[in-house]
Amino acid sequence: MPDRIDINCDMGESFGAYTLGRDAEVMEYISSANIACGWHAGDPMVMEQTVRLSKEKGVAVGAHPGYPDLMGFGRRRMDLNLTEIENYLLYQMGAIYAFARAHGLPLQHIKAHGALGNVAFVDLEVSKAIARAAARFSKEIIFVALAGTVMVQAAKEVGARYVEEVYADRVYNPDGTLQSRKIAGSVIHDPEKAARQALTIVQEGYVIAHDGTKVKVKPETLCVHGDTPSALAILQKIRGEVKKAGIAVKPMGQ
Amino acid sequence: MPDRIDINCDMGESFGAYTLGRDAEVMEYISSANIACGWHAGDPMVMEQTVRLSKEKGVAVGAHPGYPDLMGFGRRRMDLNLTEIENYLLYQMGAIYAFARAHGLPLQHIKAHGALGNVAFVDLEVSKAIARAAARFSKEIIFVALAGTVMVQAAKEVGARYVEEVYADRVYNPDGTLQSRKIAGSVIHDPEKAARQALTIVQEGYVIAHDGTKVKVKPETLCVHGDTPSALAILQKIRGEVKKAGIAVKPMGQ
Amino acid sequence: MPDRIDINCDMGESFGAYTLGRDAEVMEYISSANIACGWHAGDPMVMEQTVRLSKEKGVAVGAHPGYPDLMGFGRRRMDLNLTEIENYLLYQMGAIYAFARAHGLPLQHIKAHGALGNVAFVDLEVSKAIARAAARFSKEIIFVALAGTVMVQAAKEVGARYVEEVYADRVYNPDGTLQSRKIAGSVIHDPEKAARQALTIVQEGYVIAHDGTKVKVKPETLCVHGDTPSALAILQKIRGEVKKAGIAVKPMGQ
Amino acid sequence: MPDRIDINCDMGESFGAYTLGRDAEVMEYISSANIACGWHAGDPMVMEQTVRLSKEKGVAVGAHPGYPDLMGFGRRRMDLNLTEIENYLLYQMGAIYAFARAHGLPLQHIKAHGALGNVAFVDLEVSKAIARAAARFSKEIIFVALAGTVMVQAAKEVGARYVEEVYADRVYNPDGTLQSRKIAGSVIHDPEKAARQALTIVQEGYVIAHDGTKVKVKPETLCVHGDTPSALAILQKIRGEVKKAGIAVKPMGQ
Repeated sequence: MPDRIDINCDMGESFGAYTLGRDAEVMEYISSANIACGWHAGDPMVMEQTVRLSKEKGVAVGAHPGYPDLMGFGRRRMDLNLTEIENYLLYQMGAIYAFARAHGLPLQHIKAHGALGNVAFVDLEVSKAIARAAARFSKEIIFVALAGTVMVQAAKEVGARYVEEVYADRVYNPDGTLQSRKIAGSVIHDPEKAARQALTIVQEGYVIAHDGTKVKVKPETLCVHGDTPSALAILQKIRGEVKKAGIAVKPMGQ
Repeated sequence: MPDRIDINCDMGESFGAYTLGRDAEVMEYISSANIACGWHAGDPMVMEQTVRLSKEKGVAVGAHPGYPDLMGFGRRRMDLNLTEIENYLLYQMGAIYAFARAHGLPLQHIKAHGALGNVAFVDLEVSKAIARAAARFSKEIIFVALAGTVMVQAAKEVGARYVEEVYADRVYNPDGTLQSRKIAGSVIHDPEKAARQALTIVQEGYVIAHDGTKVKVKPETLCVHGDTPSALAILQKIRGEVKKAGIAVKPMGQ
Repeated sequence: MPDRIDINCDMGESFGAYTLGRDAEVMEYISSANIACGWHAGDPMVMEQTVRLSKEKGVAVGAHPGYPDLMGFGRRRMDLNLTEIENYLLYQMGAIYAFARAHGLPLQHIKAHGALGNVAFVDLEVSKAIARAAARFSKEIIFVALAGTVMVQAAKEVGARYVEEVYADRVYNPDGTLQSRKIAGSVIHDPEKAARQALTIVQEGYVIAHDGTKVKVKPETLCVHGDTPSALAILQKIRGEVKKAGIAVKPMGQ
Repeated sequence: MPDRIDINCDMGESFGAYTLGRDAEVMEYISSANIACGWHAGDPMVMEQTVRLSKEKGVAVGAHPGYPDLMGFGRRRMDLNLTEIENYLLYQMGAIYAFARAHGLPLQHIKAHGALGNVAFVDLEVSKAIARAAARFSKEIIFVALAGTVMVQAAKEVGARYVEEVYADRVYNPDGTLQSRKIAGSVIHDPEKAARQALTIVQEGYVIAHDGTKVKVKPETLCVHGDTPSALAILQKIRGEVKKAGIAVKPMGQ
């Protein structure tokens, strides 16, 4: 039974005069921060503050790059070609890296945001373009691959360092994919339920799909949404349960 | 008498469907490229291509960050505070660094673009914010300081690595500052004249101001505009004269 | 004694996934909305919703154009030339006009936002460029000129239709200009105090400066900030007091 | 046999320091200008100049709105919902309308740009969203519908004023659709050939598909690309042939 897990969460999604999320509070409970890089959210002031906050809290810094679509928060698919995806991600990784470096921190990981992530789940070539961007930047960077998707295969084919990710607060299909958000109830808002799912994932090595199927998973990082009303309650509950179970919460790269 | 000099030029100022400059030709004559970072010009596709071209030609890669003003090409002053300047430049340095790193190249230098550069010439605090961004990213990065301006003092106060820059194709005032572009004839378009100024600077250690005054300079890099109609002719002439004089053209950081 | 007044407030400053302000609540108390046009804040979805809301509440629609600086919320001065200012404002007026027109509403007024407004207070040529944009779009559009500034003169010189504006919740200098926000207490947060100032302005025709001086004003519109914590309380109080005094609150253009 | 035709061309695609196209020359040969609105290309300075030029040359002004993707020149599909498309187009129509109005010109038409246009050719709901934006702005605005596509049906269903458009310099499929640009030779660069196609379209009422099929068309406007190397030669040739045939070239809205 594993004695450690990483918890990652999207951070640094404010922009200019606009505040989004409760980063300072959420940072208390997570071990890896996916930090927006100024394209779908975030700006250099927010990135600086978020990296500083990460450092204070001992949270590892990761890139959370997205489409060049601030108006749509990166949630709308754009038909970019593979070279565009690769270069757009290199750009964003470099941008957040600069702040990590200025604070003496490594850039631990990269996780694709929003619609780009959704495309990557099902499109091997897009996944490989993302993994290539990661590997071109550094063989040390960890490419976060959603378990049960082509992202894992992409990481292997490209030769990128990767971890498998499982969601603590999303409902799963029997085939190991996420139930579409379009289906009501696909995001878990009940802290008890999310904590139970998290613990089953970490301790038992499987996630229970909506029809009761036990889907085997080998999670190296748990994702929890930071932007739901129940986010803090869920994170608190998971941390409490995980602690009771004797499992340490540590950044994926350590 | 120095046996070497660096020639720097602004590169990578195209954007999306828009092409600007004749980078492939100019790259033949220079040793350091100031590459736009996507804020006032450039985009990740252009940055990738420009870094690749730099590598092919043995030209060193530098950041050329500017104001967040694509519509104005970074030529309009914006009243940013010092923290904003520092963070905006860190962001842009990281972005271009990612492409250099992907190509196995170091990020050699940083040179502020357009109106930001103009402000830095006369505002010590702004110059220091730029130098701080450079030093925070890396002590190895060279901050390009226009000779005769507060940029030199800023580099010293901040403890940033720096070189002094002199223009081959700009007319100088007797006090060592550049004659304002608003005065007709302040940009030299005659290749003979520019080459003569370049050679005097490198060999004699001074630049002749518009009134005949000899202004002492200790140039470590010569700037030539890449966007004038006579740019290529000027660069060719300078390279020819410099070669005849037995002076090597090498990146400032080597 | 006047029997009517207009109350204007900045509206529609949300952007994409980012919500700012409590527009639906504030709209209950005002008669003219200064709606952001997508450059410093706002986007077409927000503009559509804000115009619809204005129509429902009987609030008149105005343009609230700003600098092309979403990252800085239009609060940082940019050195635009006069032609740029004129054309940038024409663009933004047209953009918000489209939504007003689609809802069968006229575009009542234009009020410059943030740093552009601050520059206009003291720079006659900038004020005239704004007034020219208004007059070029339509002689019916009302240019909102802060009382006691060069904006009034600009409107007259350009021949733009205009009204004079006085702040209900800002402290005034004896010369009729606004006390700088850099001085603590220059924004009035006490509803009682703001309502008293509003009533004195409307009923007595003067505003009491910080040293007790009575500054004569001829207000046609009162501005109240919509983005302070006390905004709603101030607006409620003003509306209550104004009603008691038998003064109607009506859009400036009616 | 018709005695008149309109020729439309994309104009105003420069941006900031970037110049694209040869608008002043092309304007001599066309009767309707599709002017970029600042989202995929163009900016307020360019829009002002393009509208002024249109007025000088007697060319009618139209909106050429696109996706919010300057970096991709509006050529990359974005998954916007129908309300977003409608509002984004209202915004852009208003923006260009402001310049037309300032010059005393009507906004004659709207034609969707790039990838948005391509989607509209085959997606009835997207076409209807564009037509709705047109109709909401004004019942007078002409929605340019590519002949043989769902755009015509969309205009009818929405009740928008429309004209059918045929390309003079594109190869057609036997079913009346455009041959994909991905097939070599789908854009006609030979002025003779383009002029012959134009004349056949106008005089005979059909276009000859690549397999010889005569496809009936009822063209009210001919489109010619303005951004190909042969654009001017094609336009000159078409104008010459059309004049010889006694056909007048007039804006679609007159």
